[in-house]
Amino acid sequence: MTDFTHINEQGRAKMVDITDKKVTHRTALAHASIRVTEKIYQGIEGQTIGKGDVLSVAQVAGIMAAKQTSTIIPMCHPLPLSGVNITFDWIKEEASSDRTLTITVEAKTKGSTGVEMEALTAASVTALTVYDMCKALDKGMVIGETYLLEKTGGKSGTYKRE
Amino acid sequence: MTDFTHINEQGRAKMVDITDKKVTHRTALAHASIRVTEKIYQGIEGQTIGKGDVLSVAQVAGIMAAKQTSTIIPMCHPLPLSGVNITFDWIKEEASSDRTLTITVEAKTKGSTGVEMEALTAASVTALTVYDMCKALDKGMVIGETYLLEKTGGKSGTYKRE
Amino acid sequence: MTDFTHINEQGRAKMVDITDKKVTHRTALAHASIRVTEKIYQGIEGQTIGKGDVLSVAQVAGIMAAKQTSTIIPMCHPLPLSGVNITFDWIKEEASSDRTLTITVEAKTKGSTGVEMEALTAASVTALTVYDMCKALDKGMVIGETYLLEKTGGKSGTYKRE
Amino acid sequence: MTDFTHINEQGRAKMVDITDKKVTHRTALAHASIRVTEKIYQGIEGQTIGKGDVLSVAQVAGIMAAKQTSTIIPMCHPLPLSGVNITFDWIKEEASSDRTLTITVEAKTKGSTGVEMEALTAASVTALTVYDMCKALDKGMVIGETYLLEKTGGKSGTYKRE
Amino acid sequence: MTDFTHINEQGRAKMVDITDKKVTHRTALAHASIRVTEKIYQGIEGQTIGKGDVLSVAQVAGIMAAKQTSTIIPMCHPLPLSGVNITFDWIKEEASSDRTLTITVEAKTKGSTGVEMEALTAASVTALTVYDMCKALDKGMVIGETYLLEKTGGKSGTYKRE
Amino acid sequence: MTDFTHINEQGRAKMVDITDKKVTHRTALAHASIRVTEKIYQGIEGQTIGKGDVLSVAQVAGIMAAKQTSTIIPMCHPLPLSGVNITFDWIKEEASSDRTLTITVEAKTKGSTGVEMEALTAASVTALTVYDMCKALDKGMVIGETYLLEKTGGKSGTYKRE
Repeated sequence: MTDFTHINEQGRAKMVDITDKKVTHRTALAHASIRVTEKIYQGIEGQTIGKGDVLSVAQVAGIMAAKQTSTIIPMCHPLPLSGVNITFDWIKEEASSDRTLTITVEAKTKGSTGVEMEALTAASVTALTVYDMCKALDKGMVIGETYLLEKTGGKSGTYKRE
Repeated sequence: MTDFTHINEQGRAKMVDITDKKVTHRTALAHASIRVTEKIYQGIEGQTIGKGDVLSVAQVAGIMAAKQTSTIIPMCHPLPLSGVNITFDWIKEEASSDRTLTITVEAKTKGSTGVEMEALTAASVTALTVYDMCKALDKGMVIGETYLLEKTGGKSGTYKRE
Repeated sequence: MTDFTHINEQGRAKMVDITDKKVTHRTALAHASIRVTEKIYQGIEGQTIGKGDVLSVAQVAGIMAAKQTSTIIPMCHPLPLSGVNITFDWIKEEASSDRTLTITVEAKTKGSTGVEMEALTAASVTALTVYDMCKALDKGMVIGETYLLEKTGGKSGTYKRE
Repeated sequence: MTDFTHINEQGRAKMVDITDKKVTHRTALAHASIRVTEKIYQGIEGQTIGKGDVLSVAQVAGIMAAKQTSTIIPMCHPLPLSGVNITFDWIKEEASSDRTLTITVEAKTKGSTGVEMEALTAASVTALTVYDMCKALDKGMVIGETYLLEKTGGKSGTYKRE
Repeated sequence: MTDFTHINEQGRAKMVDITDKKVTHRTALAHASIRVTEKIYQGIEGQTIGKGDVLSVAQVAGIMAAKQTSTIIPMCHPLPLSGVNITFDWIKEEASSDRTLTITVEAKTKGSTGVEMEALTAASVTALTVYDMCKALDKGMVIGETYLLEKTGGKSGTYKRE
Repeated sequence: MTDFTHINEQGRAKMVDITDKKVTHRTALAHASIRVTEKIYQGIEGQTIGKGDVLSVAQVAGIMAAKQTSTIIPMCHPLPLSGVNITFDWIKEEASSDRTLTITVEAKTKGSTGVEMEALTAASVTALTVYDMCKALDKGMVIGETYLLEKTGGKSGTYKRE
């Protein structure tokens, strides 16, 4: 169990010592999604009023959460985030009239540790915010699988989800 | 699109006025999960050292996130949370040696608005923390679907996921 | 100087005791503004891309700041904010091609103390966020006078700026 | 070990359910101290410049920490603090030229749970801030015993340290 | 509208990528003010009790806000602030007995992006805190124009307000 | 009083300018403790249920507080903490059945200023959290002396408590 880098000599959690890790460019790409009804989809995308507003708010929430990652995730190191970009796409579900909003977050830093958690946290919070803003219409929305698509930089190098 | 209670008269977001909503007992139950490899499962549950520690940290993170919900989710009202309880279960995947950790969060308040977002945010952050603490072993872990199981209280009454 | 309710018996600051103040409906309306060049005005309002986006972000920032007021302003009491609404208007300056964006914030609570600081803080942060998003184009923007337009509720009753 | 109210049915931490506890007036009085050299004492109290400034900053820090208690202490409930007052006294140590600054914090609320943690956290942070502002002169300062002097209100009633 | 560096390819906000910007010494000087009645002026400056206390609290608030800038302003990068200094001056208004408190904030960093927002945010919050501490005497105080006086460092070099 | 580096030219507090200080490896070791009854000691260490849980939560709280130090302590600089480790030991009091839990915190950074405040703040918050989780059993627990054991790095070099 010494593989768990977050565990100290007394078997409890610690914030891993990264003092001697190199400062390199690091990026991470994370994915989340939320499945909504046709009605909510039309409300979000409709031309009438407030076009794009739900997504704008969700995206601001995601970016702000990326910056708060080390205060939200206990063993996560504080990082000087150098860039965050969140993009959205809609997928039409085949068997129903539901739509799925996919959320892709890219996070970057020039630091001593990776930005995977920043990208994943931003993705989750973006989805949660869409839920919050649409829940008066339907509480049955489902936040889909959330995972790391890719990371670069650091000693462990590049990871790409197959 | 007037169904979106979070949209103001200029088509932008607002924090909905709940001044006149009744103070009632409210509860919410949310579900998330994270699928990990056999090796990580054994590390988390193993008898050797640090038994349960990953889950303890994840759970503290979830509870603290529940309390921070209104600072993480932009249009969410601040709430005097009166109780949060997070429980874990392991499910053995059928087609592989992977295990899935299910996370159930119960949040309670006596207030003017529901605690769905508190329960969902806590569930997501609990899963993200497990990811963070185990990612040195495998970056391919997947946070599973996150959704509301049940809510009670308030004008809209009880919701139960089918 | 005993008029300064925030000063304790040792002549230092304290958080005033409001334990015995009545819980009433309270509202506050605050005003701020930011003067920008014609070019920035067109960028913000232009039909091309990102319509309204600067204002959406600024407004989310204002709402989130309203919720953080008691952590930003040292002697301010924590309050269960029950609603925040931010609206924008553009005024054409007479003697120049500049435009002034006026920001009006309405904050509400049902609590033991007023929401003036929440409304004023939201107004300031909304203006600061517009500055931040446009400063690559011009660092000479000026945030205009910021003040309370009106408040209602509480022992001191209604205040209206003349 | 069921006496530990913070432990759930899986043997892990939870935020205790206080939904059904009565809303009553509650107060808590906490004590901390910091022992400093004669030179630091004179710097803090000296008539020259910045009179009282170290203590003013420390006190603001204490009051702000009281408001952040539920985000600092994991299982602590969020509380609508209704008043905080911090006072200082100097004690001359007998066997040396050192001085001890005593810090007394009174916290109040009208809520469903006590304010002991708010008072204790404010006392600790006040002492830590004095340390921070004077540490360029001496890193050997000692923060003295920190404890609850008294509490009132709630089901467990009044506690007074003997 | 591609001049808006904060807008991404989908027309929504992003946190600009500064990964490749050079680390240089950067400073910013911001100005705000608050106009108060003669009575409040005397309360703040009076010799009797609590001399300077309102300004001490306001200044602590400003410094703490400077450190929180990237959590308050959505698209602002986190920065390792290396120094903040806030100074005050009083100006006698000509046509009335009112006084205006001018607030000057200097912020410094050695980083990849400027500290303009830190200086401006600190200036606004300092003024807001004076308002908060004196509002029991008069709710008509006005926070005056807030702007950048000067910045140095970075690719865009020095800016000086004319 | 010019020895107080935190005081500006107007006799008020400032955040000291560290722009030109060298980036070096820095460590700090801090000590705190909490004295508890035999019954609480057994509850914390007992084999039955929730083994070690109180200490796990306390330690997570300490690590998270270390990361929040610059938002809790007003004049403290933000720092990229590179590692935090908290360890516990029990001491049997001689004259009574009480036990004292000693808390040792090691903090590390590669930065322009020291991590003494991070280590001390973490130590205090760890002790406060133990108090919080056990206070239903006894409100008379005492948090013992809190001080710096050692620091290394920076211009002032190594400090070791005698």
